[in-house]
Amino acid sequence: MNSKNTTRPVTRPVQMTFTDSKGVARTHVIGSGNLTIMAGPCSIESKEHLLEVGTEVKKAGATFLRGGIYKMRTSPDAFQGLGLNALSFIKDVKRDLGMPIVSEITDPRQLGDFVEAVDMFQVGSRNMYNYELLKELGQTQTPVLLKRAFAATVDEWIKAADYVIKGGNENVLLCERGIRTFEPTTRNTLDLNSVAYLKAHTSFPVVVDPSHGTGRPELILPMSLAGVAAGADAIIVEVHPRPKEALSDGHQALTYPQFQTIVEQVTKVAHALGRQVETP
Amino acid sequence: MNSKNTTRPVTRPVQMTFTDSKGVARTHVIGSGNLTIMAGPCSIESKEHLLEVGTEVKKAGATFLRGGIYKMRTSPDAFQGLGLNALSFIKDVKRDLGMPIVSEITDPRQLGDFVEAVDMFQVGSRNMYNYELLKELGQTQTPVLLKRAFAATVDEWIKAADYVIKGGNENVLLCERGIRTFEPTTRNTLDLNSVAYLKAHTSFPVVVDPSHGTGRPELILPMSLAGVAAGADAIIVEVHPRPKEALSDGHQALTYPQFQTIVEQVTKVAHALGRQVETP
Amino acid sequence: MNSKNTTRPVTRPVQMTFTDSKGVARTHVIGSGNLTIMAGPCSIESKEHLLEVGTEVKKAGATFLRGGIYKMRTSPDAFQGLGLNALSFIKDVKRDLGMPIVSEITDPRQLGDFVEAVDMFQVGSRNMYNYELLKELGQTQTPVLLKRAFAATVDEWIKAADYVIKGGNENVLLCERGIRTFEPTTRNTLDLNSVAYLKAHTSFPVVVDPSHGTGRPELILPMSLAGVAAGADAIIVEVHPRPKEALSDGHQALTYPQFQTIVEQVTKVAHALGRQVETP
Amino acid sequence: MNSKNTTRPVTRPVQMTFTDSKGVARTHVIGSGNLTIMAGPCSIESKEHLLEVGTEVKKAGATFLRGGIYKMRTSPDAFQGLGLNALSFIKDVKRDLGMPIVSEITDPRQLGDFVEAVDMFQVGSRNMYNYELLKELGQTQTPVLLKRAFAATVDEWIKAADYVIKGGNENVLLCERGIRTFEPTTRNTLDLNSVAYLKAHTSFPVVVDPSHGTGRPELILPMSLAGVAAGADAIIVEVHPRPKEALSDGHQALTYPQFQTIVEQVTKVAHALGRQVETP
Repeated sequence: MNSKNTTRPVTRPVQMTFTDSKGVARTHVIGSGNLTIMAGPCSIESKEHLLEVGTEVKKAGATFLRGGIYKMRTSPDAFQGLGLNALSFIKDVKRDLGMPIVSEITDPRQLGDFVEAVDMFQVGSRNMYNYELLKELGQTQTPVLLKRAFAATVDEWIKAADYVIKGGNENVLLCERGIRTFEPTTRNTLDLNSVAYLKAHTSFPVVVDPSHGTGRPELILPMSLAGVAAGADAIIVEVHPRPKEALSDGHQALTYPQFQTIVEQVTKVAHALGRQVETP
Repeated sequence: MNSKNTTRPVTRPVQMTFTDSKGVARTHVIGSGNLTIMAGPCSIESKEHLLEVGTEVKKAGATFLRGGIYKMRTSPDAFQGLGLNALSFIKDVKRDLGMPIVSEITDPRQLGDFVEAVDMFQVGSRNMYNYELLKELGQTQTPVLLKRAFAATVDEWIKAADYVIKGGNENVLLCERGIRTFEPTTRNTLDLNSVAYLKAHTSFPVVVDPSHGTGRPELILPMSLAGVAAGADAIIVEVHPRPKEALSDGHQALTYPQFQTIVEQVTKVAHALGRQVETP
Repeated sequence: MNSKNTTRPVTRPVQMTFTDSKGVARTHVIGSGNLTIMAGPCSIESKEHLLEVGTEVKKAGATFLRGGIYKMRTSPDAFQGLGLNALSFIKDVKRDLGMPIVSEITDPRQLGDFVEAVDMFQVGSRNMYNYELLKELGQTQTPVLLKRAFAATVDEWIKAADYVIKGGNENVLLCERGIRTFEPTTRNTLDLNSVAYLKAHTSFPVVVDPSHGTGRPELILPMSLAGVAAGADAIIVEVHPRPKEALSDGHQALTYPQFQTIVEQVTKVAHALGRQVETP
Repeated sequence: MNSKNTTRPVTRPVQMTFTDSKGVARTHVIGSGNLTIMAGPCSIESKEHLLEVGTEVKKAGATFLRGGIYKMRTSPDAFQGLGLNALSFIKDVKRDLGMPIVSEITDPRQLGDFVEAVDMFQVGSRNMYNYELLKELGQTQTPVLLKRAFAATVDEWIKAADYVIKGGNENVLLCERGIRTFEPTTRNTLDLNSVAYLKAHTSFPVVVDPSHGTGRPELILPMSLAGVAAGADAIIVEVHPRPKEALSDGHQALTYPQFQTIVEQVTKVAHALGRQVETP
């Protein structure tokens, strides 16, 4: 981490091949300079739920779907996700919508099932230090969205990515999602300094998650704009048809109109800075 | 702090009257929707130094000059600023450049001298909790740039502003300049969540200081862009003709060309979001 | 701060001369190896209140009285203390009880009045970085109890003490009172690592304040014991006849029986480690 | 977490059966009121190494051996431990010394091998949120030493323990090992407030790890004393014959004489507070 380095490193794009809604194989790239918008529900609640949200976020401009089937919840009594049964939904919805999907993996033993269904593995904050899981993901070529742990230094986060890369999988994206500080106003403190730092000093594509980062819906728009302005290659946000009824994280989910506004506004900022936004 | 509030409050602009370089009285406004760019040296090193930096930053697009005569330094052995003698420089340079100036006050006993020379008082991070000083500033009508303390919650910061307002001075601007966290990559963690929050829930004009916030010159551009995108009414940055020779904070000072780039880029982001940038 | 240093530095004791209840001049020493117990109300509410609490804590074993007349309160609408009028109470009560007293000073302009009434100046957490105040205290010979700021590093705290020492006053005690962290269970996180570090590497007498450090009465006993075990030269705690009716900080004030238990238990730990406890 | 609760809960002791050096089955109890001292190397470097350290720490007064075979290291290039091959060493050394042993498990797939060799599973800080691992440990009856994550709130830590308990294994001990704060003097900030809180409000046995908590050998003695004074049921420390040659964490390992001093001093504090210390 040499701050004297005046040559900004070139970002190494992460590519994924997926099948679009016409059955044509296409390549999705994150980190080429364009901005990618990833959206979807926190947890997948049913096949219909995923399809509905996916349809709406695609219409609004998202090109990557998110949706969890294993949720890391602080309490064992909270909703833990639909589990492996939902993988079949994912395959169907992906095919119908023609969108790649990212979903969280929480245990190396899930790998065999997951690898066929998802286009990108998410490693959540709580698992950033789960090196045994990271080593296993290093044995695949599927891209890994590695979220920063609550209290990980940027240096530790980069070294966690090295656990994947050392296994042979260079397709790692780093996702800033907020850190623990003394400040209670926001659920976490979304640290955009890390985004600017990673873009200035490393070649990782960087993703910003303002939903988890702030935990407050009214801050997601300004922090999405700020994330793009700081240099993020992608933003990932949570959208739900009826946030108050969501089985998890409803307090921070966006409605469809709120998401539509975010797409419009981040597009303006991206264009102002000479970047394109990927369209469905 | 009601997160349910869906009506975004209107920012109450802070106005200052100053004399421009042709001797004409003008009004400077921060918080009207336009973006203000404030720049200058960390410490004023001499009259010539201030005049040179002021001339250059004005040429590049700054409309507000910054420069310290009392520096709060961690060690009593570090350079403490030129002190009151420099107030005469300030008056001369202001008049020659026709720019308003903000400078840090560190003791209520300095008030009589300061009030004639500066257009805005800066209260530094270390003095945010110095309520005796804040009460005295409340007795004036001079605007107060209240920096957030290293570990102040947003709620404490707002309540510190109340010490000034309760005295009768409503001209308070809040300046985010980074908080203390566990992350060592940046000197502080510039918290743009606070900017988005204050714009969504209060009527204070908000200023962002990415120089102190990051402590790394290569991050000042992206964090300036991000600050404007998050909704800041102004940015304030440190500029020095030869950063390596600066008597304080040289490691984070911008060169003239770096500052020029920042002005150009923040202007693009402001325009994209439908805002104007104040010009000299 | 050389961790290789194997020679533990000798603590430089701080001495105060005061007049005991028989009118005899006596010397109180903190930092000689003995343990000092300081106690009293958060705010002085009246002369009778201070005298009652002082009488009770002396009876239980305290040899140093605490009591504030200027309170640093987050909100300007909260009780701010009785102010200078209470200095006359302090003189009377000190004389009647024959105990030295420590009280918080918040503004250099209070110095003339304070210096005659108190035996030790307290500089609160919010003023640790108030270097103008520290410089003025450096011009006296009255001991200074310098509390650690919410987010001060140990190095900054030591350097703040240097502002007093550089003025000519070497009588500085450092008081750990908790730092800001992400943990909400306790009001602050009392950092006893700093106590152990200061004792191992500096010659300052060290005081621990578990009342502010935890903000929870049920934790004050165990953290007092832990503070003494970590090496503190003194503990300072808040006591109130009826905590629920206190004008400030009642939630963390101890009752007389709770304080009595603390004195008994810390005495056992001190004796186990070969130290004496100062008695009235 | 009801702070009004005036009835201190009774600690539920954790019991382990092991075979002593004479081949006799014995029961080891943590949390009965007595103090347990756990010690050993950070990583097991060889059978001889473990046997030597175990012999020495037992002689000095430890009744529980620690030693890692899987090390969670920030960088994939750092020494990762001897792995499963060392389990046979562990069984031999345990039998020879007649001491129970705790060792860190990092992956649910290691469970079958581990469960025969160790008397207690350690879950390290980085895995506190690894709920899949915790669920598996809940299927056994082997005690689990659950270390607090770097940035876990006390509430999250308790809820992580619930993942084990809900599976049917109530034998959970909570180990404080320091949290991430802004303070750079110590590697982590050992938070003894959490120890006092857990003893006042829960029935978990509590262990303190001052080696990882401070990362500085000269602070381990005072923080061990403070941990016992705060109410810990056990302390766990790292000991190495030649700290400078250790394959991991040598900077914080104690020499045999340093460990001997700790045992002597914590015994004094425990006795002063009416507690016994378990002896080999």
